[in-house]
Amino acid sequence: MEQALTDFFTTRRDPVAELGPVFAESVEALESFTLRGGKRTRPGFAWMGWLGAGGDPASTGAAAVLRACAALELVQACALIHDDIIDCSRTRRRFPTVHVDFEQRHHRAAWSGDSAHYGESVAILLGDLALAWADDMVHDAGLDPAALARFAPVWARMRTEVLGGQLLDVHGEASGDESVAAALRINRYKTAAYTVERPLHLGGALADADPGLIAAYRTYGTDIGIAFQLRDDLLGVFGDPAVTGKPSGDDLREGKRTVLVAEALQRATETDPAAARKLRGEIGTDLSEEQVGELRALLTELGAVDAVEARIAALTDQGLTAIDASSATPEARARLREMALAATRRAA
Amino acid sequence: MEQALTDFFTTRRDPVAELGPVFAESVEALESFTLRGGKRTRPGFAWMGWLGAGGDPASTGAAAVLRACAALELVQACALIHDDIIDCSRTRRRFPTVHVDFEQRHHRAAWSGDSAHYGESVAILLGDLALAWADDMVHDAGLDPAALARFAPVWARMRTEVLGGQLLDVHGEASGDESVAAALRINRYKTAAYTVERPLHLGGALADADPGLIAAYRTYGTDIGIAFQLRDDLLGVFGDPAVTGKPSGDDLREGKRTVLVAEALQRATETDPAAARKLRGEIGTDLSEEQVGELRALLTELGAVDAVEARIAALTDQGLTAIDASSATPEARARLREMALAATRRAA
Repeated sequence: MEQALTDFFTTRRDPVAELGPVFAESVEALESFTLRGGKRTRPGFAWMGWLGAGGDPASTGAAAVLRACAALELVQACALIHDDIIDCSRTRRRFPTVHVDFEQRHHRAAWSGDSAHYGESVAILLGDLALAWADDMVHDAGLDPAALARFAPVWARMRTEVLGGQLLDVHGEASGDESVAAALRINRYKTAAYTVERPLHLGGALADADPGLIAAYRTYGTDIGIAFQLRDDLLGVFGDPAVTGKPSGDDLREGKRTVLVAEALQRATETDPAAARKLRGEIGTDLSEEQVGELRALLTELGAVDAVEARIAALTDQGLTAIDASSATPEARARLREMALAATRRAA
Repeated sequence: MEQALTDFFTTRRDPVAELGPVFAESVEALESFTLRGGKRTRPGFAWMGWLGAGGDPASTGAAAVLRACAALELVQACALIHDDIIDCSRTRRRFPTVHVDFEQRHHRAAWSGDSAHYGESVAILLGDLALAWADDMVHDAGLDPAALARFAPVWARMRTEVLGGQLLDVHGEASGDESVAAALRINRYKTAAYTVERPLHLGGALADADPGLIAAYRTYGTDIGIAFQLRDDLLGVFGDPAVTGKPSGDDLREGKRTVLVAEALQRATETDPAAARKLRGEIGTDLSEEQVGELRALLTELGAVDAVEARIAALTDQGLTAIDASSATPEARARLREMALAATRRAA
């Protein structure tokens, strides 16, 4: 995957160099950001979807499939760069976020105008470039026209869904939508469809998988993707900082609108108005360790933790049942089972 | 073109509706913005490039070509929406810009958080959506695979060039690059390549034009595109507000970094240090009508206006010579001549 991405960036060198060194330097920042990152979760699921539908890694077409799967990392680069502007995040993976990086370059050079606005402007454009290049990478991957024709509509749906999911998230936070349904819908589109369901679907489409297998991939992807996010929500409040690497309770301080909090608010509103007031008044504020502890206890007492754990268990069962009954290869079924359990039972 | 865009938005209704009414409403704002707009300059040049290379509007493939050309308006929607954030523009075509529209919705609803940041966040995501959909529209246009394969690399270059050009613009403004070369480079990539050269090239590629015609299109597009921008720069300072619809001298108040100003600064630096100080000290400030008048006189006295007029004349000649000597159809040659003169001799 790294090699496919590195090779792609190499193909952009000449057109970028034509615009001069300033553009080339900015593109270098995009390249470092993309290559430095992450667990390659999305390309990994796409590749697994292809293998599971009978794709042969020793076949002549395998390199093109790998390149098309790796293009997901460029969509992800755009999503992260723009999300970091939207969330006002200053660091990612221990480096300054892209907009902060360019804000700092502006500041160090003592240029004119507002450093923060300059950083955001450059980051908007570099995110756009990553999104445009994601498409270029797909179309330069060397897929045969029939495979590309199967890939394209799923790719289109995925991009619309993740942008829609981010938009719902931004809207939900501003409008104060507290419902469990709204939180689940954001998980569905912003996380599950984009991270698991559509990547598997893309891989299946490349291998020309039968409709039954595609349906199984999509059920598994939606269910495990949402369960993954629910586990993340629990860890954001109850996780051990020594294991997660994040200060415990940070999600409560940031006021992240999760299914966990929505469940708690719904229960409190029905049964315990004082608890509801406490939750609404404290979440999203600069909480002390003691307050975090109290809120944790409250989430547990209200039954929200059990409810989320029950959802995770049901979704995981449902997703695994779908994949077990599918025509995926035995190796893929075993691997997807492992991946599901790793994603939903992890401690970090 | 309008019909092709309207039809495309109709195809997105179902996938958008699946995410619920909040997303659907935001997409409606994107649709209105895209359909309301502009002169359809880019699709117009692309269509002309196809006709000029022998494309037959009565042929069965013409509708697909029209749809592929219309997709340029979705790239343009992204460019405008994101540019308006970068330039802090509050209105466009007499309507609030997209980020201001959503800022106002947030404010009217008295939601939590910062209205301006909310507006920018939504506008970043809607611009991304337009960029992703531009690609979807190309790939759903119904082009035959050979035509799509000729189209795709030019489309890729164009998107990289316009984003690179915008980035150079943002960088040049912050770093205070005053050189004529830098201003011309921004014109080349942000305006000429994106508005004339690559659209004509795309149309030619769709018609499988011979390399000589493609080269003529590109020369014409680069030269006329830059000349168009230079005319725009002159009108931004010397245009009649009754004709341009913009307060006269606004480009000087905004401190827009144009070839005109770069020429003046270069000349003043060499021959008249007091004039150079005046230009550097006043441009980009809240100028009175009197000051605008003085700066106009200075730009003229320094010879910058004549120099820009000479450049426009030379570029127009060069572009027209290339197209006249080309194998473009006589109708296209005549029409491109008219378009060139309209773009470079206009008063508004």
